[in-house]
Amino acid sequence: MKECTNQVSHRPFAPGLEPYLNQTTNVLDHGFIRVVDYMGTEQCIVDAARTSYQRGTERKQEDPKLIRYLMRHQHGTPFEMCEIKFHVKLPIFVARQWIRHRTASVNEASARYSILSKEFYIPSEDQLAVQSATNRQGRGEVLEGAQAKRVLTLLQHDAELCYQHYEEMLNDPSSHDYEPALQSLSRELARMNLPVNFYTQWYWKVDLRNLMHFLALRADSHAQYEIRVYAQEMLKVLEAWLPNVYQAFIDYEMEAYKVSAQGKKVLRKMTQLLERNDQLTTLINETIPDRREREEFLLQFGLNMQ
Amino acid sequence: MKECTNQVSHRPFAPGLEPYLNQTTNVLDHGFIRVVDYMGTEQCIVDAARTSYQRGTERKQEDPKLIRYLMRHQHGTPFEMCEIKFHVKLPIFVARQWIRHRTASVNEASARYSILSKEFYIPSEDQLAVQSATNRQGRGEVLEGAQAKRVLTLLQHDAELCYQHYEEMLNDPSSHDYEPALQSLSRELARMNLPVNFYTQWYWKVDLRNLMHFLALRADSHAQYEIRVYAQEMLKVLEAWLPNVYQAFIDYEMEAYKVSAQGKKVLRKMTQLLERNDQLTTLINETIPDRREREEFLLQFGLNMQ
Amino acid sequence: MKECTNQVSHRPFAPGLEPYLNQTTNVLDHGFIRVVDYMGTEQCIVDAARTSYQRGTERKQEDPKLIRYLMRHQHGTPFEMCEIKFHVKLPIFVARQWIRHRTASVNEASARYSILSKEFYIPSEDQLAVQSATNRQGRGEVLEGAQAKRVLTLLQHDAELCYQHYEEMLNDPSSHDYEPALQSLSRELARMNLPVNFYTQWYWKVDLRNLMHFLALRADSHAQYEIRVYAQEMLKVLEAWLPNVYQAFIDYEMEAYKVSAQGKKVLRKMTQLLERNDQLTTLINETIPDRREREEFLLQFGLNMQ
Amino acid sequence: MKECTNQVSHRPFAPGLEPYLNQTTNVLDHGFIRVVDYMGTEQCIVDAARTSYQRGTERKQEDPKLIRYLMRHQHGTPFEMCEIKFHVKLPIFVARQWIRHRTASVNEASARYSILSKEFYIPSEDQLAVQSATNRQGRGEVLEGAQAKRVLTLLQHDAELCYQHYEEMLNDPSSHDYEPALQSLSRELARMNLPVNFYTQWYWKVDLRNLMHFLALRADSHAQYEIRVYAQEMLKVLEAWLPNVYQAFIDYEMEAYKVSAQGKKVLRKMTQLLERNDQLTTLINETIPDRREREEFLLQFGLNMQ
Repeated sequence: MKECTNQVSHRPFAPGLEPYLNQTTNVLDHGFIRVVDYMGTEQCIVDAARTSYQRGTERKQEDPKLIRYLMRHQHGTPFEMCEIKFHVKLPIFVARQWIRHRTASVNEASARYSILSKEFYIPSEDQLAVQSATNRQGRGEVLEGAQAKRVLTLLQHDAELCYQHYEEMLNDPSSHDYEPALQSLSRELARMNLPVNFYTQWYWKVDLRNLMHFLALRADSHAQYEIRVYAQEMLKVLEAWLPNVYQAFIDYEMEAYKVSAQGKKVLRKMTQLLERNDQLTTLINETIPDRREREEFLLQFGLNMQ
Repeated sequence: MKECTNQVSHRPFAPGLEPYLNQTTNVLDHGFIRVVDYMGTEQCIVDAARTSYQRGTERKQEDPKLIRYLMRHQHGTPFEMCEIKFHVKLPIFVARQWIRHRTASVNEASARYSILSKEFYIPSEDQLAVQSATNRQGRGEVLEGAQAKRVLTLLQHDAELCYQHYEEMLNDPSSHDYEPALQSLSRELARMNLPVNFYTQWYWKVDLRNLMHFLALRADSHAQYEIRVYAQEMLKVLEAWLPNVYQAFIDYEMEAYKVSAQGKKVLRKMTQLLERNDQLTTLINETIPDRREREEFLLQFGLNMQ
Repeated sequence: MKECTNQVSHRPFAPGLEPYLNQTTNVLDHGFIRVVDYMGTEQCIVDAARTSYQRGTERKQEDPKLIRYLMRHQHGTPFEMCEIKFHVKLPIFVARQWIRHRTASVNEASARYSILSKEFYIPSEDQLAVQSATNRQGRGEVLEGAQAKRVLTLLQHDAELCYQHYEEMLNDPSSHDYEPALQSLSRELARMNLPVNFYTQWYWKVDLRNLMHFLALRADSHAQYEIRVYAQEMLKVLEAWLPNVYQAFIDYEMEAYKVSAQGKKVLRKMTQLLERNDQLTTLINETIPDRREREEFLLQFGLNMQ
Repeated sequence: MKECTNQVSHRPFAPGLEPYLNQTTNVLDHGFIRVVDYMGTEQCIVDAARTSYQRGTERKQEDPKLIRYLMRHQHGTPFEMCEIKFHVKLPIFVARQWIRHRTASVNEASARYSILSKEFYIPSEDQLAVQSATNRQGRGEVLEGAQAKRVLTLLQHDAELCYQHYEEMLNDPSSHDYEPALQSLSRELARMNLPVNFYTQWYWKVDLRNLMHFLALRADSHAQYEIRVYAQEMLKVLEAWLPNVYQAFIDYEMEAYKVSAQGKKVLRKMTQLLERNDQLTTLINETIPDRREREEFLLQFGLNMQ
């Protein structure tokens, strides 16, 4: 089969994303992400959302406003109309977190069939943090110099040694010139000697709704650094691809905060204490320029804005 | 196969839900929900969540606090460990909304194989609302008496007529005693004459996480009344089954509000204007008694509570 | 937002599918399918499958053979790497079957927001079949002329009447010029008067693996005619898009047959009775030219082909 | 929360599965499976399937025949009505294969939060196979004694060493009594030094349909031995729980074979060559006793059995 690209297509076309196609962005010491393919534009999201509105619904929002409206009200299905495919190279322990996002398609390199390369992740020194005392899942201060050196030595040494023994067990004739001491152990067994900082790679295809769910969790400051750096690169891809979606996602998901029933009571009390504060009124009008969104906001917290 | 029930089982047992088993709760004029089976208790959710915490994590939250913590931080997977199965009878137009929730298992009565009963939904007079002028998807005022009567007459008449013709086309020998004028039209064709207010029924099985997602959308005041009444009955089932989960769901989902990045700016300004307000400090301590949750809240809005 | 199309894209390009883009194919009396967008080519499937095969796996199958191999062995994930989006107009009772395929994305026209058009499905006379006596879900002989006429009259009359009353209840000022007798009943209520042969429409986006699953069930002779005609048009789209995939799908899914453990015993007995039959040997070599597939076949049925 | 068990429940009860509840079955050297909870019985499957058959479908199959019919015709949804939850301890490289089954719920022990135990998988000597020369993914002959010993030494040594350094990096005060040389490296980083033969554990909850899909792939002889042994134990659980489902699954899935369009041509030729063979007729009647299934079989291969 001969692959066709660089053809004039009648498909919807996303100018901002095209320069990313087949470009490799390095992540960590040996990893990368690469946009392989995509489907859909902001217009496609809008078209799908407007399917709901046929005859009898003349009053239309402008398109970017509609996108913000959909995001704000968590109307997720129109965002499923876009799709993106990445080629990703990543350490196994990162892949183990990533794969928990089930609504996606994956084809991963197999260590049953083929031989893994000698590529493993070693953190940079400024990432070698101690266990946080206050946060069970986070990192605290960076390790001191001598201790950091010791950790790096251990990680480097063990990965080297495990890989050397992996090769010895595999006894791959192409990888050495000495006389093999072993018959080849099957690959599916030999690989079990490799630590989880070794790299794997996969194709990962996901729709926009589920991509954003992934980013909301993995680009968040609570995510482990080693997966967050991938998510941050993908955020840039999202911004280039669908700028209005990106901004709405930042405003209503990434930087938003869910206030509980109890929290709402507190905030309502605050609004009572501040009723008819001109400074506040001005701020609200400037900060939330969209009338509809402002009304929703005021309604939630009982603000009287006369 | 002989069905066994009323046996001593070693399975986790939810005392509050057992009385609901096989009890039919009427909904609308001919519909119902019935809890057929369930799996899991609050302890199961806690056990699953604690799998993450093995050696080295001695500081444990009490169980109900952990449930609230999981809900507040949208750690959804432990809630997937519970499952419930309903038998539901509902109008077709309600079923069409309901089925959009994809992560669930369904077995529906088939009008290709069998003959639908003469049961259709007629709204009660107090539900006959006009189209809302302000809200594209909502209802406004209730229709006046004469007009309501006219609507009810049309709905009743058309459903009766369509069903009469359905039967005539089916020519089911068991449903009449006059000489059939027609060979039986295949059921899969004849059914196309029935309006979407006819009732269908199904088994619907769903995990707790997806049940809550369903309830958040369908028990909400923006949902159409005819599906909301089902969701409201299911909320009661949830409360009886898993009371701490129910309360956390109400506090952090049903009655919560997501504040955008812009909204957070406004709320931060308000906290500045109210800094060191004793009345507010007291209210916050009383309203959000959990220290950890209170700290998260204060952090979001920059409140200084000294 | 201004939509871009007809641009040179670096994305993989499927020459056979491009002519289908935005072309409407009529189905039934008022329905259609239209390919709106797609992602992926046969090369993409092959690339994804080959991710599994890195260093140390030099012996490669040719691409079309690999596609057949993947299909034969139900290696489904590489087929998820392609995606297609259709715009479909279809009767509600067809939509109700279609939507049971859960792994797909849908945006449907909403009768809560907008007013449905007066378009309903009336079967052609040659499709008016009686209920099959032998097959619970199928159709038998075609109705005789007078009876067919009666059925068509009923379907046409009831649909017209229900729609007239729908409009009366809606009281849409744009749809009539007489003095309205009613305030407008809310759309979400009025629509319940419409039979399930009225048309709806939606965007339907699905990956290739799930599209094939849909086609295997819905293009099958046991599917109801009214959904089968849609599936058959989509089969043509598949053939134009991915010809090797299409052929493998026909050979290993659509026209394949699963032989049970018991059936295999019977077939093994037959091969014993026919051992060393030259005519058979020749036939097998001609009919199953691929050596690897032939060996699998012979192995299953214990044929001795020396 | 106080956990209730051993209560009389009104839920459907599976006598064969109850003895398995909370019993641990050892798998590999340190792994296990344990049935934690279940929902549903064969009667539940039958009830769900019969929802499709209401008025007008008097001719009913017996229940076990219906289960076989559903399995044979791949009517999968009634099987989704049963659910089971396992607690599983398994090596990371097995977990990585297992997790690819997306339609399931998982809560896994976290090495970000807690400290992994010193438990790793070492194959038994009879499992130390060489790479198969003919099958890219399989194992061939068992390694010779001296070579096997060398492999076991490498695996044991590297796992011990990596764990020792893991502990050193963690510097867990509870795990040693010497003076720590390091501040504690954060757990999420230290764990990256562990090979994929270390054990993890999780709760895994799945519906019966997806369990069978898992078993069809993972109890198959092509699956890697280390996951197959888990699947084989789960097959026993299935047999105890739902014996008719188990048998139908074996007959129509595990031991069945899909014959391609081309293969069917060959088999039809064979039936021509054997037409009216009495020995064959007798065999068929005995081997496929169900009349309906036998007719389907004969139809596929054009056998004339008069």
